[in-house]
Amino acid sequence: MSASHAGGLIIRQEEPRNLEFPFDRLDSYLTPVESFYIRSHLHAPMIEADSYRLTVDGAVKNPSAITLNWLKSLPAKTIVATLECAGNSRVFLVPQKPGAQWELGAVGNAEWTGVPLATLLDQAGLNANAREVVLEGADRGLPAELPRPPEPINYSRSIPLDKALDDVLLAYAMNGVDLPQDHGFPVRAIVPGHYGMASVKWLIHIRVLEEQFQGYWQTIDYGFWDEVGGIPVRRPLSQVAVKSEIARPRTFEVLPKGQPFTVYGAAWCGTGDVVSVELTTDGGQTWAAAKFLDPIRAHAWRRWSYDWEIPGHPGRFTLKSRARNAAGESQPEKFDERYFSYVVNYTLPIEVVVQ
Amino acid sequence: MSASHAGGLIIRQEEPRNLEFPFDRLDSYLTPVESFYIRSHLHAPMIEADSYRLTVDGAVKNPSAITLNWLKSLPAKTIVATLECAGNSRVFLVPQKPGAQWELGAVGNAEWTGVPLATLLDQAGLNANAREVVLEGADRGLPAELPRPPEPINYSRSIPLDKALDDVLLAYAMNGVDLPQDHGFPVRAIVPGHYGMASVKWLIHIRVLEEQFQGYWQTIDYGFWDEVGGIPVRRPLSQVAVKSEIARPRTFEVLPKGQPFTVYGAAWCGTGDVVSVELTTDGGQTWAAAKFLDPIRAHAWRRWSYDWEIPGHPGRFTLKSRARNAAGESQPEKFDERYFSYVVNYTLPIEVVVQ
Repeated sequence: MSASHAGGLIIRQEEPRNLEFPFDRLDSYLTPVESFYIRSHLHAPMIEADSYRLTVDGAVKNPSAITLNWLKSLPAKTIVATLECAGNSRVFLVPQKPGAQWELGAVGNAEWTGVPLATLLDQAGLNANAREVVLEGADRGLPAELPRPPEPINYSRSIPLDKALDDVLLAYAMNGVDLPQDHGFPVRAIVPGHYGMASVKWLIHIRVLEEQFQGYWQTIDYGFWDEVGGIPVRRPLSQVAVKSEIARPRTFEVLPKGQPFTVYGAAWCGTGDVVSVELTTDGGQTWAAAKFLDPIRAHAWRRWSYDWEIPGHPGRFTLKSRARNAAGESQPEKFDERYFSYVVNYTLPIEVVVQ
Repeated sequence: MSASHAGGLIIRQEEPRNLEFPFDRLDSYLTPVESFYIRSHLHAPMIEADSYRLTVDGAVKNPSAITLNWLKSLPAKTIVATLECAGNSRVFLVPQKPGAQWELGAVGNAEWTGVPLATLLDQAGLNANAREVVLEGADRGLPAELPRPPEPINYSRSIPLDKALDDVLLAYAMNGVDLPQDHGFPVRAIVPGHYGMASVKWLIHIRVLEEQFQGYWQTIDYGFWDEVGGIPVRRPLSQVAVKSEIARPRTFEVLPKGQPFTVYGAAWCGTGDVVSVELTTDGGQTWAAAKFLDPIRAHAWRRWSYDWEIPGHPGRFTLKSRARNAAGESQPEKFDERYFSYVVNYTLPIEVVVQ
């Protein structure tokens, strides 16, 4: 993608910055850095590389505070991972739910370079009862929604120890360049397969806990209602549900009747590979298989396309796509209200006008 | 504009439908019908042409209820008028204000065909004390914000009698075709030079009043704080303030250093012609004149362009445009808080990345 066509974001909130990739411009496997959606909970902190310190403490034998250079001197790993905001596609919900009204573009696929979190945890030496790892950012403030803590807090999110030791990355580069400020300069977590809220930006603190973390963004926000024995219980969101999205045509796009049109999109899933995408152009009565443009790669999206013969008569047509993963899980037809305003992975309708 | 490129809207709210024109796609004087922003306060009513009746009553000598065919049999007039939502560009406000988070595209310029409201008022015969004309739509429901009436109400808005007798149109066609449902089929008001809230859609009732109308969308919503002798008083919004917007480049677009780039946009004003647009590419230190692509036409926008020599060094640059009307009124540098979340006509910053 030539630099002159990259960038250009839809503003969903000016401050803190919440900007969306115009998903209809999808045309590359890797989302250009300048086109990648920006999700910020609080004012973006400005961190100097020279004064940056990453503290590792809590239930560890050797607490430390490491510099950026020290981090960069450790063996690095590069992965491709799709990040999707848990609130992506919220604008489709009726009635409207609070929060940024994301449409299709609070998702992106990038190459991330950094040091496995496991490397730092190994060096720190975990206590025997270690159970979770809290990732804390430098962004600090009062959350927007009630109930909230009485004083400003830093953005923080916890992940289970097994995930922390598996594939979490402490990334300092994105598509081969330093992380931009809005994406967490100088270091952010990448938690592959989890919604974006886990991939903490401006990461300054790694705290190992021996108990279950009950922070604001783990319980009040980014939680959902599970149940135990019929009783609703609050749990943190984690893995990304299987989903596909139509990039083109766009909502209310006008298409010429009787012509071929290549429907184009992407599909992803937190865990488990996406193995099929189907498309309906009649509102869900009939479905046909789309073809994949990208191979299977754990935690990364696959673009797909479908050659549609636009009907020969004018009218309004509703397109939907439906992905399925290797475990047989498909996108649902309707939104699951247990998630209130998150995990909007049902088959989203795109209405077009044929003339 | 070829049909295959029209349409494609940004969803700001799914229901009631609030969809925005992607302003970076501006490339014609008239906004195509399918690209025109959609602003709905309540669920869109479906009206059959055959059963449609437009009631004219209140302070008139001859109340009537006319059919669509009867309306269409009256002498018609065609005008070009820009409609802008009073909340357009609200997303730029910090802190965020309630309401649809419009960016740049809750504005459009179309050709409207219909019957002058004055024709119907003449036929009805105004009482001597007639003072305002309430336009009421078929859309009905409970407004979102408090304080609100205890029962559902129809959307309604009042205009002063002199404006009603001057140039208000009862439009049944848009760019030469029947009004689409989302734009008020079969008849909407067009109140040239006033914010879009006055151009009532699905118009079913014209009520002449001898007093000042104090409806919900005249006082609580679409109002602002004026003052009398130092005391704040509530007044309805009316005329569109002078404004220009940059369509291209887009927010955070990546541009190649040292190359020419044509900055492109549009400018408009409710009353008084836009006579100049200036552009700054250094955040406001220096301004240079843009050139107009369209002639002056009352109540319609003028597109403009500016040939920018992009600096030869990389960096982030902030572009702003500033329009001035014939009366010498310019866009302000800052938002006027008396409007709370409306009339966002200050010089909006568009940040681009030069590489």
